[in-house]
Parts: sequence; structure tokens; C-alpha cells
Amino acid sequence: MPERCGCCTTAAATVAHVGLGAAAVRRRKVSRLGDARGRQLQRMRDGLVVALLQATLLTLTLLATQYEPHADASDSRNSYLPVMGGFDQRNLRITKHYPMFQDVHVMVFVGVGFLMTFLKKYGYSAVGFNFLVSALSLQWAILARGFFEMDNGRINVGITSMLGADFATVAVIISLGAVIGKTTPLQLIVMSLIEIALFATNEWFGMNVLKAVDAGGSMYVHVFGAYFGLAVSLALRRKDNPDFSNEAAEYHSDLFAMIGTLFLWVFWPSFNAALVTGDNQYRAVINTYFSLSACCVTAFAVSSLVANDNKFNMVHIQNSTLAGGVAVGTAADMMLYPYGAVAVGIAAGTLSVIGYTYIQPALHRVLKLHDTCGVHNLHGMPGVLAGLVGALMAALASEKEYGESLFLQFPARAPMNNTSALTDVNEVLKFLEPGDNRSALRQAGFQLVALLVTFVVAVIGGLLTGN
Amino acid sequence: MPERCGCCTTAAATVAHVGLGAAAVRRRKVSRLGDARGRQLQRMRDGLVVALLQATLLTLTLLATQYEPHADASDSRNSYLPVMGGFDQRNLRITKHYPMFQDVHVMVFVGVGFLMTFLKKYGYSAVGFNFLVSALSLQWAILARGFFEMDNGRINVGITSMLGADFATVAVIISLGAVIGKTTPLQLIVMSLIEIALFATNEWFGMNVLKAVDAGGSMYVHVFGAYFGLAVSLALRRKDNPDFSNEAAEYHSDLFAMIGTLFLWVFWPSFNAALVTGDNQYRAVINTYFSLSACCVTAFAVSSLVANDNKFNMVHIQNSTLAGGVAVGTAADMMLYPYGAVAVGIAAGTLSVIGYTYIQPALHRVLKLHDTCGVHNLHGMPGVLAGLVGALMAALASEKEYGESLFLQFPARAPMNNTSALTDVNEVLKFLEPGDNRSALRQAGFQLVALLVTFVVAVIGGLLTGN
Amino acid sequence: MPERCGCCTTAAATVAHVGLGAAAVRRRKVSRLGDARGRQLQRMRDGLVVALLQATLLTLTLLATQYEPHADASDSRNSYLPVMGGFDQRNLRITKHYPMFQDVHVMVFVGVGFLMTFLKKYGYSAVGFNFLVSALSLQWAILARGFFEMDNGRINVGITSMLGADFATVAVIISLGAVIGKTTPLQLIVMSLIEIALFATNEWFGMNVLKAVDAGGSMYVHVFGAYFGLAVSLALRRKDNPDFSNEAAEYHSDLFAMIGTLFLWVFWPSFNAALVTGDNQYRAVINTYFSLSACCVTAFAVSSLVANDNKFNMVHIQNSTLAGGVAVGTAADMMLYPYGAVAVGIAAGTLSVIGYTYIQPALHRVLKLHDTCGVHNLHGMPGVLAGLVGALMAALASEKEYGESLFLQFPARAPMNNTSALTDVNEVLKFLEPGDNRSALRQAGFQLVALLVTFVVAVIGGLLTGN
Repeated sequence: MPERCGCCTTAAATVAHVGLGAAAVRRRKVSRLGDARGRQLQRMRDGLVVALLQATLLTLTLLATQYEPHADASDSRNSYLPVMGGFDQRNLRITKHYPMFQDVHVMVFVGVGFLMTFLKKYGYSAVGFNFLVSALSLQWAILARGFFEMDNGRINVGITSMLGADFATVAVIISLGAVIGKTTPLQLIVMSLIEIALFATNEWFGMNVLKAVDAGGSMYVHVFGAYFGLAVSLALRRKDNPDFSNEAAEYHSDLFAMIGTLFLWVFWPSFNAALVTGDNQYRAVINTYFSLSACCVTAFAVSSLVANDNKFNMVHIQNSTLAGGVAVGTAADMMLYPYGAVAVGIAAGTLSVIGYTYIQPALHRVLKLHDTCGVHNLHGMPGVLAGLVGALMAALASEKEYGESLFLQFPARAPMNNTSALTDVNEVLKFLEPGDNRSALRQAGFQLVALLVTFVVAVIGGLLTGN
Repeated sequence: MPERCGCCTTAAATVAHVGLGAAAVRRRKVSRLGDARGRQLQRMRDGLVVALLQATLLTLTLLATQYEPHADASDSRNSYLPVMGGFDQRNLRITKHYPMFQDVHVMVFVGVGFLMTFLKKYGYSAVGFNFLVSALSLQWAILARGFFEMDNGRINVGITSMLGADFATVAVIISLGAVIGKTTPLQLIVMSLIEIALFATNEWFGMNVLKAVDAGGSMYVHVFGAYFGLAVSLALRRKDNPDFSNEAAEYHSDLFAMIGTLFLWVFWPSFNAALVTGDNQYRAVINTYFSLSACCVTAFAVSSLVANDNKFNMVHIQNSTLAGGVAVGTAADMMLYPYGAVAVGIAAGTLSVIGYTYIQPALHRVLKLHDTCGVHNLHGMPGVLAGLVGALMAALASEKEYGESLFLQFPARAPMNNTSALTDVNEVLKFLEPGDNRSALRQAGFQLVALLVTFVVAVIGGLLTGN
Repeated sequence: MPERCGCCTTAAATVAHVGLGAAAVRRRKVSRLGDARGRQLQRMRDGLVVALLQATLLTLTLLATQYEPHADASDSRNSYLPVMGGFDQRNLRITKHYPMFQDVHVMVFVGVGFLMTFLKKYGYSAVGFNFLVSALSLQWAILARGFFEMDNGRINVGITSMLGADFATVAVIISLGAVIGKTTPLQLIVMSLIEIALFATNEWFGMNVLKAVDAGGSMYVHVFGAYFGLAVSLALRRKDNPDFSNEAAEYHSDLFAMIGTLFLWVFWPSFNAALVTGDNQYRAVINTYFSLSACCVTAFAVSSLVANDNKFNMVHIQNSTLAGGVAVGTAADMMLYPYGAVAVGIAAGTLSVIGYTYIQPALHRVLKLHDTCGVHNLHGMPGVLAGLVGALMAALASEKEYGESLFLQFPARAPMNNTSALTDVNEVLKFLEPGDNRSALRQAGFQLVALLVTFVVAVIGGLLTGN
């Protein structure tokens, strides 16, 4: 957060005195038009573009979607009793996933929205704009992610696709945090649309081609979102010397930001656990709980050690306390054990505070990279850490430690089709899909490849989008 | 929201400089009493009335309520194993409904409370008073709604009656939004008590006599609450020319209001889905999610198109973004499909913004109707739209599309008692109650009648209450 | 809340002008060091201590914890189908407890954090410090509580131990409310560590030796936390005459405090119900809902009756409205009936308002006891009331009213081992553990003993800790 690193006062973007709601950088154009009438016309043009986008989304939703079977009244399994082949009402998909879905939904709309209010002049605009971009991204992400998993030419809509759309939206909001204040709202909306498409492709490639797992989306969501946003910011950097006084937080906006932080912190276990099931889900909750607790304590401690005054550093408290949730994401459902989660949390808290204190100013000096909300410290580096921890845990995962559920944890490690090994396993697990019979090290390698691919796709995609 | 429609600055009520907590319009009386001692006496009288109300509620609760069987330790099915006829611990009523109940509870107390803080002078009072009225209404609604479904002369208390009480309380709070600032607290409390009784009667009549369904309560809650409140406001209108400067919002109270908006937006799927089960519940979640997303985007777009300056219109963002949740309420659990939900959301967002911009000022000019929070634009018109969409969907509902679950969706369409059709259906559904063998069009007609009855009861009830 | 009782302006601690974040009372030392450099060194020392604590927690977690069986992939029951002896996926521990766990988590971090922002100068610091202390206490409480229930020399970590840790953390935060502003942060952290250890011992003694039940932790959490904190505050009292102007609330911080109040109020049913199951859980939700509603209404009424001006008393609205949740805690899952819960709520609301208005100033006059947040009125006295109500309900509990589930409600009342009575009961309940065959009155006696022991341990522990 630049107001604390002196170097940033000579940074890139012109943000002063222009409401984000109307347009950030638009001021230059406005001076040509010369009056309020011009701004109003631009705002109407923005409104028209958004209206057209919504109309397009309506058309695509009409042409391409259907209810998934559990939500489709015409599917007779919803009427029949279980003994007649109907769905078991004690184990419905909506019942199982809904509470965690709602927690994630609160994180996206309340958590991130309020965390961004720390920007003094943007408080209200940040919440409002986050709201618009998120509602747009949700609808587009349902479609973009669905294109990769069509069922009879239609996208199945249900709680898991809604959760997936919320995850994609998080990536967009993270990127927003890197560029907010440097672009017009319309540019941000276009950026979101491109990012979602790229996100869906990269996620599909990582999950289905590379078969690299990532329960909490630390690679596919956090690394992708952070480096995409940073690359856009890099592409947008300018030579001029703007005034960053508007980034200063004030007392009340910091209290508002804490609303965001606390909801993110409290509900993060749901984020890491929402898309897995059974004991994997349980471990994801436990590991995230421990990692976040240790990260919070560590962020306070390290923040005190690197401090140069006698107050809480609000940036560290509002952001670095959350890094443990990111850093434990990929391995959240693995056998990390509570102590492993605590260790990851300590590393993440330390890394994030050091990032805000030393790395962000250095990046700005060297690359002229301006990172409005410091997403590199909360999502970028902790996300990379998560990918590395995930690869390490994959390398250590043995059938002895995981039992038969090793093949549920890492589907690619399951025996290949038509082998006696698969038959043996299926005496216990019944419906296991055949896999690639990967070794632990091979799985770890693919995890690293997925991390690298995500990083590269994000950076290149972001640079192209920013130009 | 009057500070944005110039006409309203010449509107009805005297709200300035008098704390809602003590009394809004009471100032006139106070000038007679002439001093602070008078105000204190009045406040003590208010306290006494509230205390007596609570004592009455205690007595009625003592005389009339009992735990429903699932919560009653003396019911042996709670001790026995399922094989011995006990309740299945994997499918308990509390487990199934509790997460959505809590979401609704957050909407009532946090969502609505904070949404009302946009009134500059009333921020704290609005939250506090909403708190008091809600806690009072909950207890009274349990009794008032329960009187219609006695079991051995006693009201069964449980999670569904608690949810029903929360719904009734929402109707009261909506009405409050139309009249806040024009009455004394005591008048509002009396209004709440009358409204709950009328609400329970109308809901019972619509659901059990007309057999019109309304999963999200858009007719029974939103239409009822909005037009009841507007009718009270109409009855209270005065000729004098008050100062509405206190309705202006300021920066921080708008951020507080956004807390309310976002929690309402995020949890609205729970509101529309809380009282239905199985695939109906699942559809209610999906449809509401899509409708709200489309409505949010549309509200931003239309707001820009009708804007006359270059800033976000906060009223539209805080309110119109939610209209999609209201408008999809009645048909939320029907086979509306995602595209249908998106279409409803687009219509609702447009309608609501146009309501704030053009219809509310017109209503004020023509009828001298003052609507403090603009409930007509968020609850009134979108609620009517919901009723119409529900009737349309009912007219289109066929056994082909819904399978046997058509009769669960519209109980009145089930075959009549002692018919072979009922026997046939019960080979699949087992315990289906006999219905009226209604056709699709007939069901649609009854949906429209329920909408009309609700509107008429609300308006007449409100006019009588206001006088 | 002292700014409203004149007497308190002559009270004990020096809190003015020193940020809690840096150090509250540290000013005296600082004047010796004479400059900002000294404060910075102290802050670094604090950071080092916190870092060492976190390192110690990592070591203990490594040495002493393991996943509980439901979260342990190496436990084959997680892979196997139920028919092969695996866990039933329709009834997983994480699914059952997680939504309520999250509600409790929100209460601890968002609810209490924001409730404390009413302190004008401490708003941000209170939220931040609450965050740090809670994250530290969680980890330590998992270990401290676990030491009493080792499994093969290891502590089983899972959702119930996480819930237990959240409960222990609540006790610490309550104590914090009594002493905040009178100590250095480091002193508060040391206090927390001691308190958690004592808490775990007292809870284990009460639950396993005395076998006194307390579903909502009103005795083990609220009474313990309140009187421990008050005893520390008493031990810290000083003769000087400080300025309490910093305790004054202002408009916006009161709105922030209301965020805390409302989340606590809404989620309190989860707090009282989270650790029990089946119909007990259901009753805990219902009883808490009724008690809180009645308490809220009563607090408004009594507050008006004892008022000496014409405004809402914010302290009563922010705190006393919650006393019903505390007071119903011990008996929450018993057959209290809705009317009993309403009666308890009325008593608690009255008691709490009277506490703030008359008892707190009196305690300050007589004992020089300063209670920053008035925890005696919200947690202390209502907690004692809860213990008494629990004992009364235990005395009234008969097999006629509870059926066989009496022995699940009060395990000590179950028949002794190797008796025919136990065999008879187990024809219904199957796996009932043998008990002590206590009578109703005997169980009530043990409930009272547990209350007394908790009070005495808290007071003595607090006095020793404060010195």
C-alpha cells in the first residue's frame, strides 16, 4: 500500500479527484469535451455498453444452459423414493454444498468489497464497482467455464458451477486490486471479460490435462489473478509523476476495511473446502483454520519487528493476516497435519509482511510496477508458496498414509483402465475412475508444471490485455 | 429517495431535529409540555407500553405454545433408533433448515437494519428501532401465524414457524421503510402489531384457501408489506411543508448502508429457498442467483442511462440491485430456467431504477404520497411483477415438464381424493395429499387472485391503520 | 460504560492518549526512555515475544496433535462404503457441525471485535488486538483443552475441538472487556495464556468430575470469563484519578458497535446449540431465539423506564439486548419451553440494564472496581442467572418429561454399570454409557457446585494473574 512506501509517491497512475464511478483516467478526455455534459455522455455510453453485455449474457444463457439433473423437476429421480432409484433426500447436493457456498459468496461480495474501502477517496466507489464487476463476472464465468464441460451441447447449471463462478470472480477481483485507480471502469470491465475466458481455459488445462489438484484454488485463482493483474498494471505504467495522496486510508475507512478482512479470515476455511468432499473437506477446514491462526499471529509479530513507529501497521493487519489462507490452499485437503498447516501459516505471514515492507517498494523502483492493493504480497507470493507446498505434499503422498483414498485425492495416481490393480481398488471404492498410474514424484512434477503454466499464462495474458 | 427528487423537499412529514428514538412527530406535543421533563415522561410511558406488550406475549406464549415433535424430548421418536420408528438423525428438520434460517435472520437484523442507515440523522436510531420492532414482531408473529394451524389447541413451535415469523417481520420492516420519520415510535409499534395479524390472515387465506404458491413470499411478504406501508403513509400525509434535509445521506452512512445491501444480496437465495425442499429448493437458489446477478448489472446500466451527473447513484446501487430477488420470488422454485431468471432480473432492475427516477416523484406529485425509503420501487412493483411471473409460470406448468413433482409444486393440481389418478401418482410419490385437480390455467388464475387479494387487503388495512 | 456514570470519571486506570496498539500504560516507562526510539524498541520486543509464542505453539502442535479419525485419510473408514464399516457420508461430523461452527467463528472475530469499537480512541486497536489475541488463544486452547483428553498420547484435532477452542477464546475476550485500557498488550497476552489454561482445567473439572452440563457455556465461559477479568481489573486498580474521556463513544463508532451487536444477537442460537446434537440442539436453537427476542424488547423497555433523557441508551441496546443469550445458555437444551425462555429473557434484560444503571456505579464506589465494557452486566450476572436456571431445570427434570433421553441430557443420571436398569434403557438407546444414577435434586446440587467452583476459580485466578 503505497502511502507507506515513500517511493510510491512518485509512482505511475493519475488517480486524483476523479471518481472511479464516473471514470478514473477519463479526465484527460473530459478536458477536451470541456464540461459536465461530456462526462454525462460518457457515463451514458458506459451504461449502454453494460446493458448490451447483459443482453448478450441473456442470449447465451438462453441458448446454452440447462438445470443440472438434481435441480431439474423433469428428471424423475427428483420425484422418486431412493428405493425406486430416486435421489437420496438425506444427501442432496444443494444441502451439502450450500452453507460453504454462502460463505464464499459473502467473501466475494462483502469481504473483498469492504477490504478495498481502505482507499480514502474510493471507499464507496470500490464497493460499488466490485459489486458490478462481480455480478457480471459470475454470469460470464458460468458460461465460460461451462463451455469446457458441455453435456449434450448444454451447460449444466448447479451449485458446483455457481461455486466455480464465484472462484473465477475472485481471480478477477484480485486483478482489480492491482490496477484499481489506473483505468476507466469500462477498461476494467473489458479486462474482466478477457480474464474470465483465460481463467477458464487455464483452469481446465491444469485440472483436466495436467491433472494437477488445487482444492483452494491457490494456483488457478490466486496466482492467476495476482500476476494477471500485475501484468496489466505493468503494461499500463506511465512516466508521469502522479499524486498518490488519495490512497491514504483514514480512521473510519480502516474500520470498514476490517469488516472485509474479518469476514475473509473467518470464512476462508469454507473457500478452501467448498469444492472437495468427505474427509478431504474436513482436512481442508482444519488445515486452513490452523494456517490462518498462525499466520495472523505471525503477521502481527513480524509487523512489529519491521516497524518504524509504535502503531499497528494497518496494511499488515488487513492483508497479511490472510496470507495463510492462500498459502495453504493447494495442499489444504492433503495430509498436511495441523503442525504443517501452522508452519505454512508462519511462512505466509512472514512472507507477506516482508513483501509489503521491502519487496513491493523494490518492484516499484526496478520495474515501475505499481500494485494498488498490494496483491503481490497477499495473493501472488503466498499463491506461489501454496503451489510449492502442494507439490511437496504430492511428492510425499503414499498409499500407506492415504489408504485407498489416495486415488480420490490425486485421480491421476489411480491405476490405469483394465488393470487388476484398478479391480482391486474398486473392491473398496466401487466407482473409481481409471487414472494414469502416476508415481508420487510424477504427480509433484505435474503440480509444478501447473503452477508454472498458470504463472506464464497470467503474465502473458495480462500484458496483452493491458495493451 | 427524496433528496434526489426535488419535488419531495415540499413533502409531507416533519422529521427534522427530533430523534426517532424519543419520538419523531412528538415535537408538537412537547412544545406544549415545554421541557425535557415532558419528553422523559413520554419516553417512560413508551417503555411501560413496551413492557406490558412483552408481558402479554409471555402470557400468550405460556398458554398457547408447545415444542413441535422434533424438538420435544418427551416424544420418544427423538430417543429411538430409526429402525424402531425414531427420527432419522441424518435428515433432521433443524439440520436441514438451520443454515438458510440463519441467512434469513442476518437479512432481517443486519441487512435491513444497515440498509436504513442511509438516513443521515436516523442512522443509529433506524438500526436500533428496527431491532426493537423485529424482536417484538418475531414473538407476535409466531403466535399470530400459529393461531391458524393449532395442533390440539396448541401452536407447534419449531424452525418452520421461526422462519415464518422472520418472513412476517420482513413485511413489517418493509412497511416501516415507507413511513419512517413520519410517526412516533409507539405508533410504529402499534402499526406492527396490526400488520402482523393482517399478514397472518392474508397469508393463510392465500396459501390454504386460494392455494396460491409463493416460495419467496413476494406476494405475501413484499407486495403486502409495501402497499400496507404506502397506504399508512398516504393516510398520514399532511398539508404542511416540511424540511427533508435529514434524509440526505452522507459518505459514511452510505458505506454502512452498503453493508446492508450486500448482506441482503448475498443471502437472498436463502430467503427464496428457505421454506421449500428438495429440487424445488435447489431451483430457488439457482434462479435467485441468476436473477440477482442480472438485476445488479442492469441496475448499474439503467442508472447510468437515466443519470444527470457523473457519479454512481447510491440509491439505485443500494436498492435496485436487490429488486431481482423480489421479482423472482414467487416463481423461484418453478421451472423458470436460468435464462428466465436472467430475464426477470433485467426487468426488475429496469423497473426499480425507473421507479426511483420517475414514478416515485410522480406519485408524490399526484397523490402527495411520501415513501421514505422508496419501498414501492424495491418491494411494491417488483413484488407485483413476481406475482405476474408466478402466474405465467403456473399457466405454463405441465406434467411433461415437472413429472410427478408437479403435484408437489402446485398441491391444488393434484388429483382429487378417491380417484384412480391419485392412486397412480402415489405409486411414485407415496404420501401425496389429494388436491383439487386444477388445470394449469386455473392455477394461474388463483395465483392472480391471491396477488389481487393481497394488494387490496394491504391497501385497505394500511389506510385503516393510518387513521 | 463509565462515561455515563459520573462516578467513573474518578476511576482507576490511565488510558488517555496512548494507543492500545503500542501500549496502554507504557507511557510511564516511555517517559524514562524519553523518545520514540524507546517505544519502537518496546514494540520490537513485543513482536519478538509474540514470535516466540508462535514458535512454541508450532512445536507443541507438532509433538502433541493428530487428525481425529473422521479427518484422517489413513483411517480406512473414510474410504470404505458404510456397508463395509465406513463412515456414513450422509452424517459426517464436519457437515453436521460446520454451519454452526462458522456462526460462532463470526461471533468471536466479527461480533466481539466490532462491539468493542464503541471506545472512541480504541476502535481500530480494539478490533486489531481482539484479532491477535483470538488467533493466539485458539491455537493454545486446542492444546490446553486437549491435554485432558489425550488419545494414545495425542490430541485429536477436529471440529469439536475447534469449537471448544472458540468457546475458550470467548472467555478470554470477555475478560479483555473488563481490563482493556488498563494494561500493556503484552500483559493482556500473558493474561490470555494463563486464563486459557485455567479455563480448560475448570471446564474439565466441571464437565467430567462434577458432571454438570452447560450447553451454551454460560458457566464455564461467561461466568468464568467475566469474573476472571473483573478480578484482574480489581487487582490492577490504582489510586490515581485518570481521565476517562476516551471511553466516550461517538456516532460512527456506535454504528460500528451495532454491527457487532447484531451479529452476536443473530448467531447466538448457534453458540448455545453448536456442541449438542439431535433434539437437544433443536431446543437450544428455539429457546435461545425466544430468550433473545424477549430480552431485546425488555432491554428497550427497562432502558426507557430508567432513562434520564429522551434518547436511546446505546450501551443498553448494544449490550443488554444480548443478555438473554447468556442467561438461557446452561438450560438452553433442556425442556424449558418457549414461555420459560421468554421469562428468562425478560429477567436477563432487566438485570442487565439495572446492572449498567445502578450496580456498576455502586461496585465502583464500594470496591473501586472498574469494568471497561461492563462485562459484569452482560456476562457476569446473566451467567450466574443461567447457572441458577440450569440448576432449577435439572431439579425439575423427570423421566416422564424427557423419556429415555433424560440420560443423554444428564449423563450422570444414567443407571450405574452392570445394573438391570442400564440394560433396560439400552434396549432403546443401545450405546448409553453407565452413569451415577443421580436423582434430579442431586444433579441440581452438582450444577450449583459447578457454578460456585467456576466463580471461585475465576476470582482467585484473576486476582493472582493481576498481581
